[in-house]
Amino acid sequence: MIVSDFAPPIFAFKKECGIALGTLHGIGLGPGDPELLTVRAVRLIQTAPVLAYFAKKGSPSTARTIVDSWILPGTEEMPLYYPVTTEISFKSQAYIDQLHTFYKVVTEGLAGQLSLGRDVALICEGDPMFYGSFMHIFERLKDHFRISVTAGITGMSGCSASAGQPIAWGDDVLTILPATLPFLDLTSKLAATDAAVIMKLGANFPKVREALAATGLVERALYIEHGTTAAERILRLPEKTDDTAPYFSLILVPGQGRMP
Amino acid sequence: MIVSDFAPPIFAFKKECGIALGTLHGIGLGPGDPELLTVRAVRLIQTAPVLAYFAKKGSPSTARTIVDSWILPGTEEMPLYYPVTTEISFKSQAYIDQLHTFYKVVTEGLAGQLSLGRDVALICEGDPMFYGSFMHIFERLKDHFRISVTAGITGMSGCSASAGQPIAWGDDVLTILPATLPFLDLTSKLAATDAAVIMKLGANFPKVREALAATGLVERALYIEHGTTAAERILRLPEKTDDTAPYFSLILVPGQGRMP
Repeated sequence: MIVSDFAPPIFAFKKECGIALGTLHGIGLGPGDPELLTVRAVRLIQTAPVLAYFAKKGSPSTARTIVDSWILPGTEEMPLYYPVTTEISFKSQAYIDQLHTFYKVVTEGLAGQLSLGRDVALICEGDPMFYGSFMHIFERLKDHFRISVTAGITGMSGCSASAGQPIAWGDDVLTILPATLPFLDLTSKLAATDAAVIMKLGANFPKVREALAATGLVERALYIEHGTTAAERILRLPEKTDDTAPYFSLILVPGQGRMP
Repeated sequence: MIVSDFAPPIFAFKKECGIALGTLHGIGLGPGDPELLTVRAVRLIQTAPVLAYFAKKGSPSTARTIVDSWILPGTEEMPLYYPVTTEISFKSQAYIDQLHTFYKVVTEGLAGQLSLGRDVALICEGDPMFYGSFMHIFERLKDHFRISVTAGITGMSGCSASAGQPIAWGDDVLTILPATLPFLDLTSKLAATDAAVIMKLGANFPKVREALAATGLVERALYIEHGTTAAERILRLPEKTDDTAPYFSLILVPGQGRMP
């Protein structure tokens, strides 16, 4: 059950009185190649006066990098800095508390812009509704402001196209698994599906490889990091010998479909 | 195991001798809104001399309709007419034989254009690698010609954005199920997942609704037809009282994620 902690009476009042509020545009950017933005994403980024994006302090924002060539001069930028990413476990109370405060502050900052009548383009890697942090903002603001969502190409679609391997076809059952799942959940789900995508590998990569080995899927699996970008690397899983993987990497176990 | 029935010695010969062959571009168009094409899809459609698309004789091609506003004058069109779609069961030998012949003929036609050195843009609804008919062409031609694949927005991403409902977030396990699966497969998969998308409803809709009822998911499910187009219809599943659904419809059982 999702409970929003955001309840701004002043904005609700403005809305009721017909005072113009801005629209929040949640915009999917796709997997990394700037040409994989949709026409709609480019239009909204080029017309909204404010461009907001998640970032880690000290590192370039991936989302900001993807849209770099599309931004028009005069756009006001609003980086939203995560207080913490992978330094501490996402299961710890400290992580939960810090993220909770972060989303509250970010929500208030966005609400401030929207209440001034300014549209905000909040850009997100991949697809905002597919395992995106955008959901945390969406759930808090949806009852108070107009929100439009622009779908983006998912990382798995981009990687599958680059690798020239289908995700799924015909009557395949496809299971999408976050790499954060416990080992036994991974093996039971992998054993019960025709095709699989395992996302957000990072530090979970060795566990995932073990789960694929336990289910006899290593030979069919592809490892892809930074798909569709200049740093793209595609390997058959048996050829990947080290244990490190970036957050933006995934494993694809293509379906085998049926072929008339 | 996929076995291609296409082995054109003449094209292989040309390739070895360095005679210029065209490139086949498999291009995802997304769910229906022409603005959800990627920038890359528009570029390729506007530069390839030949535009190919699947169609049913007597009906407008969905893919052709989506790109209508993007096609430049002078583009040569190559409709690929299915001999049969849903008139007979896809499990019958007659269906398999007719589709087999169809893909063979289509493959030869495309190979003819490519061997003349002409690039062909083969456009596909959604994402070519995600349950797309494009796979049947890709598998037959990939060893003989250069093929590029451009990922597209999946129907589920488009529908999820329109509905303002996430597909999955946090540690959700997401299962994609073709509606063609037997009832007991549907219920066992639905019972074991956090989030689900059920695709290609059509005549399978009543069976799918029954499977959702059996797993207690009707209240959480959304029914969406023709998502992102002018004919879009979004209903909570309990509000859908009739038994008919078009092929381009799906059911979304959004994940419930975790919210810091």
